[in-house]
Formats: sequence, C-alpha cells, structure tokens
Amino acid sequence: MKSDLDRLMAERGIDALLILPGENEDPYRTYLSNGVRGSGMVIKKQGAAPVLIVNPMEVDEARQSGLEVHTYDDFGYSALLREHNYSYSAAIQAWYVRIFEHFDVRGRLAIYGVGDLNAALKSIEALQKGVGDRVELLAEEVRNTIFDRAYETKDADELALLREAGRRTSAVMRAAREWIAGHRAADGVVVDANGAPVTIGDVKRYVRGQLFEQGLEDPEGMIFAQGRDAAVPHSKGQDDQPLRLGETIVFDLFPRLPGSYFHDMTRTWCIGYAPEHIQADYDLVREAFDRSIEMCRVGMPTHEAQDMVCELFEAHGHPTVLNTPATTEGYVHSLAHGLGLNVHEAPFFPTRTAKYWLQRGSVFTIEPGLYYPSRGYGIRIEDTVYLNDAGAVESLTDCPYDLVIELKG
Amino acid sequence: MKSDLDRLMAERGIDALLILPGENEDPYRTYLSNGVRGSGMVIKKQGAAPVLIVNPMEVDEARQSGLEVHTYDDFGYSALLREHNYSYSAAIQAWYVRIFEHFDVRGRLAIYGVGDLNAALKSIEALQKGVGDRVELLAEEVRNTIFDRAYETKDADELALLREAGRRTSAVMRAAREWIAGHRAADGVVVDANGAPVTIGDVKRYVRGQLFEQGLEDPEGMIFAQGRDAAVPHSKGQDDQPLRLGETIVFDLFPRLPGSYFHDMTRTWCIGYAPEHIQADYDLVREAFDRSIEMCRVGMPTHEAQDMVCELFEAHGHPTVLNTPATTEGYVHSLAHGLGLNVHEAPFFPTRTAKYWLQRGSVFTIEPGLYYPSRGYGIRIEDTVYLNDAGAVESLTDCPYDLVIELKG
Repeated sequence: MKSDLDRLMAERGIDALLILPGENEDPYRTYLSNGVRGSGMVIKKQGAAPVLIVNPMEVDEARQSGLEVHTYDDFGYSALLREHNYSYSAAIQAWYVRIFEHFDVRGRLAIYGVGDLNAALKSIEALQKGVGDRVELLAEEVRNTIFDRAYETKDADELALLREAGRRTSAVMRAAREWIAGHRAADGVVVDANGAPVTIGDVKRYVRGQLFEQGLEDPEGMIFAQGRDAAVPHSKGQDDQPLRLGETIVFDLFPRLPGSYFHDMTRTWCIGYAPEHIQADYDLVREAFDRSIEMCRVGMPTHEAQDMVCELFEAHGHPTVLNTPATTEGYVHSLAHGLGLNVHEAPFFPTRTAKYWLQRGSVFTIEPGLYYPSRGYGIRIEDTVYLNDAGAVESLTDCPYDLVIELKG
Repeated sequence: MKSDLDRLMAERGIDALLILPGENEDPYRTYLSNGVRGSGMVIKKQGAAPVLIVNPMEVDEARQSGLEVHTYDDFGYSALLREHNYSYSAAIQAWYVRIFEHFDVRGRLAIYGVGDLNAALKSIEALQKGVGDRVELLAEEVRNTIFDRAYETKDADELALLREAGRRTSAVMRAAREWIAGHRAADGVVVDANGAPVTIGDVKRYVRGQLFEQGLEDPEGMIFAQGRDAAVPHSKGQDDQPLRLGETIVFDLFPRLPGSYFHDMTRTWCIGYAPEHIQADYDLVREAFDRSIEMCRVGMPTHEAQDMVCELFEAHGHPTVLNTPATTEGYVHSLAHGLGLNVHEAPFFPTRTAKYWLQRGSVFTIEPGLYYPSRGYGIRIEDTVYLNDAGAVESLTDCPYDLVIELKG
C-alpha cells in the first residue's frame, strides 16, 4: 500500500520518484496525488510527502490533494518557452534545472508515468543534459517496480472504494441478466416484444445505460462475446449479432468509479439451454474457480493457484499454458491479476514461477476459463476478491453463477 | 494527413516508426491501424504499410485494420517469458531480435506511443542491447514529430468523423441550454419544479445522459464551471454548487466518437441576466472570436491569429500572454489547437512564433477567452473549425452564441 513506498525506496536505494508531466491519465500520478487527477509533475523524495508541480489552470484541483502544490510558472515555464522560441527541449532543460535545484533532488531517480513516449524520451534527454551531474536516472524491472509492490496491498480507503466499485458493477451485471431474461425466443434467437431480434449492440446499450445510472465509467470497454468470439478472450463481441440460444456468451465487465478504482468480473451465460458438453466444461471451470478461491491464503506464491488450475484442466484433457505456452485452445491465459487504479496490476499469477505472494490486503481477480475457437465456444468465470485481515478470501463481486438464462418473456 | 507519413519519413531520414506495445489507449497506434484500437506493437517501414504484432487474444480485431497481422507468439513471446523465468527485460530483448530480423528493420528508428514510461524505458534498453547494432533509436522534437505534421491536415474519412462528432456534440450542448432554460429561479439560484436548487452536478448528470444518447464518449471529462471557477480555465466546476443567476458559466465539452475523433466546443452563459461589465467583456471575446475566424486562410502562420487576439485584448486594457507570459488574469492561454484522435494536437498557436501554418484540411479550435479569478468571472467561446478545399473556414460546431439564458420555467 501507499505507506510502503518509503520502505521500498530505502530497500532499493532510490532517492526520489519522478512522475513526468503529461496530458494522459496516469494512475501513478493519481496514486501519489491522493486520488486527484491532473497533468502535472510529481516529485517524491524518500521520507517526504509528494510535491505537485502543475499547469496554472489546474492549481485549484491539485490543492484538493492536501499536498504542496506549485505551478509550472513558479519555475518560469511560459517565459522559458518564449525565451527559447518554443523549442521544447531547450526550454524544459532549463526548467528542470530550476525545479531540481529548488527541491534539492539528488541521487538515484526512478522515472514513472503514463504518457507520450516520444515526449518522455525528450524529457529524459533534457534531464540528462540539465541535471545529469546530480541525478542518476533509472527504470525498474517491469512488473517489479516500487509501485507494483505497493499496489499489491490496499489500505482501508482504497478497499472502501474497491468495495463500492464491486457493489455497483455487480448490480449492472445482475440487471443485464434480468433484462435478457425478460425477452422471449423465436427461430433460435432472442427477440423483443415486436419480434425483432435483440442484438449484442442492444445489450451493450442497455448495459451502458446501467453503468451511467450507477455512476461508473467504462474506459476500457466491456466484452460481450458469443460463440466463437467468446473463445477469443479479448474479442469484444460483434454489435450486429442477435443473441443466439444455446451458445456461450462471455460477459466481462471492468468499469471503475470515476477516475478511480476498478472492478473486474465475468459471467458466462447460455440463453435458453446449455448443450451437454458446454455444461460439462462450465462445471469444470466452476470447479477450478472454487478450488482457486479455497486455496488462496496469506503467504502463498501466486503461481500455486495458476499451476493447480492448469493441472486440473490438463487432467481433463484440455491443453493449457503450463505445457503448451502459446496455445489458443483450452486454458490460454493466467488465472488472475491484481487491480486498483489499474485494471491490471500486481500481484500477477505467472506459471510455475514464484514472483508474487498473496498478502493481507491483496485485491485480485480469480478468472479461470476454457476456450475453443475451433468448436465455437468459450467460458470464463471471474470475481474480484480480497484477502482480509483474518487471512480469508472475501469476494467483492455479488452475482449468481448460473450458466443458463431461462427466458421469461 | 496519413498519406504524408512516407514523405515526412523520407524528408527526415527516418527509416522506420515503432509504436511500442502497451495496454494504454494510444492514438498513434489507432492512427496507423486504420482506426482499430488494441494493445499491440506497430512497425511501419518507409514506403511500406504498417504491420501489427498483437496479443493473440486481439488478433480478430486487429485484422479489421486490413493490415498484415502477427501475434506476439509468432515470435515466441510466451515461451521466451517462461524460458527467462518471467524476467521481462531478458525475454523482450530476445523477442525484439526475432521481430527485427524477421521484418529486416534497420537504420534510424523513431519511437512513439502512449504508455507506461518505466516499461518503455526498459523496452528501449532491451532494444539497445538486442538490436542496437542495426538500428539507431531516436525521438523527435516535441510538437514537431512526423505525427504532429501528419495530424495537421485531415483526409476525407477523418473529416467525415470529425463532422459527425461536431454534429452530436453540438446537439448535446443545445439540449443542455434548453434543459436549463426550462427551469425557474428562486432566491438567486435555479430551482426545479419542487423548488430544490439545480446544481452543477445535476447539469453534468443531464449532459452525461445526452452524451450517452448521442453515442459519445467523454474520456477527459467536461468543464462546467461558474463564477471564480470559470476564471480558472481547467477547473471542472464543483458538483454541489447550485446554478446562480448573473454569474458566468463556462461550459467546455470535448467528447469523441467511441475510440475515435474528438470535438471541442465552449459556450459561456449567464442565467437570467448578465451584469454590464460581463456583457462588455463577452462582446469583446466574441469580437476576438469573429475576427480570428475571418483572418484564417491557407498559408497563414498560426501565431498571427494569436497575436491579433492578444493585441485586441491589450488595446482594451486586458493583460495577455503576449506581454505577461505567466499571467493568470486576462487572456491566459493560446487561441487554438488542432484536434483529431487527440483532443489537443497540431497545429498549435504559439505567441509571436511561426511554427505552424494553416493548410487546406486543417481542423482546429478557435477559443479566445478572458479570465478574472480576482473578480469572480471567466469567459470563453470555442468552435471547432475546418479549412476547406476552397480555403474557407467552416465551423463544425452548431450552437447559438447568446450569453444570457432566459428561464422559461
């Protein structure tokens, strides 16, 4: 959690963290700014609170962080740009010198952020030229940064937001199920009161309305995919397809509170009836899901759950990433990921490799699945869960797991 | 426009463009992928069509680009990760070698994208180590990249999307005006039929519903700010404030078609009545707006319009960025910016500096404003306009400019 940052910096010999300024939404910046979004620079020295340096237009909102706030122009940004005839590289080099001298930033400086890569590379060139004598710029190993390690556990404020995101997202998923169930069938597809086919586009439109009602944002876009599309885990589904009876639908919903914490959940549905082979695979995925949740405990290396699921599926004849790393049939991904201000963050669940351990306060998904594009179906079940202070797994998701949706219309 | 990329690459001696893979939404990737969103790598060699290398889960959607598509695992990504015990740096270094050899990427390679900066720096380290003997990695001057120069003009397909975004966004703005006008006043604030104050939060909720009805996304969040907040150009407004009579409201709306092109427009409103000094400043901003649009012509350096507006405002006693670069009172920003897949892109409108020239096919905002936080009001008028084939300015925005909203409720 955030209070671990100073310890992690000390352990890794990092003297300061720098979030580069930029217009893009940036979870690192939001995390250090106590939830306030913006486009500014953040400097956090070891043992000190973060300092925000923001566009003058954003100063009011930045102050809501409760942190020390300065503007770009406190260090002459506009004047430097003019002075350097709008040559950004030259202007920001002079600007970084002023800022780094003012805050006495020295030593090993790790760089983070989400933004324009070309602009970041020019900023790093400017930093090297301007303050390369006082700081050593560095990047950390991917998926093992100070932030990755802090994100692995959530504090009470974060957990409250994650619970609320889960409550609202679950309500949307349940409403969508009920909405579909309120229709009737004709000629193998779902139809409305006028007999017109109900399409995936219609469902998504209904869901977007429900997300709006619940005050949720959907920046990444939901997955509502049926048949063969359901077997390609990131296929979003085709809006013009009518809902067909007896095919699997994978509905993966991962919205967030506005500018804030995500939830992530998936249900698989068959409308009207489920063919026997699909019901059998569904039951196996459900078993993998239940057994994963049962085995999660404080201190467990995450790969143990991933390996267990692979072995279970392989024992039933399904190819998995354990012995067929690039397979696109069977079990084709990893079991889970953490989530917070990012929809995917640590802890991750690699195969046969101890890199992450479950901790009190870890929030992560559990999402086994089976995918057969060649046979035209895919299945996934996903909840977001929390390892609580007592070391028990609590689900933040609240939605039935029933495969078949009986039409009542 | 996109068809300029090869010419720009040749002029600048750049042999290939590389968009690094990453989960973040990335306008560079979308632009090169013919509008398809995804998380993959894009390589474009000079004179050749872009090639997409994507997560196997995204392959179906990537193919909708009509471009050559490969998966990460075509180059052994999953196996390399396992082989290197999930050490990303080592795995991606070996992976980049395979990819660069397969596509015979050589020479000067410019790097772009929007994503995680720490991860990008590790990718660049891996590229240096793995293929540093065959490519020279480079970044271009900020706001003068090949993409900036391509973005400066739009082709017919892009213009059609920009027109549609303008049509829908204008409809939302007009609906919001009518919705507010349908209320009545009590005790200096707008109230609903039950006499309860109508807040900024209520307006934003209404507007979000209208955006949803129009099929627009609002990833950046609208500005609806009144009084002193209206004088801080990027203040988003405070949801709990009731709408007050006789204060300026700056309503800046910049949504986009889903995953696609933006529109950007602003209106300033006073509900019930406008105090005389505000009406006078509003009329001056309107004059600056009209004169800016009148002077735009093919070949004009953009700063001429910015300088004209500064001089007009200064002639009326307002401080501006021309002679007071970091001012927070008066005219505090630049006149305009281009827009497309980015809400802010080239052409930019710096002060007294010829860096951008208007061209046939340029799409840009015109948005003069006056801001007085010390006096509690701000004013801005903004349309998105297009310089057409005949060299004339056409507005893509369609919404009345009247300052005062008379309540009819």
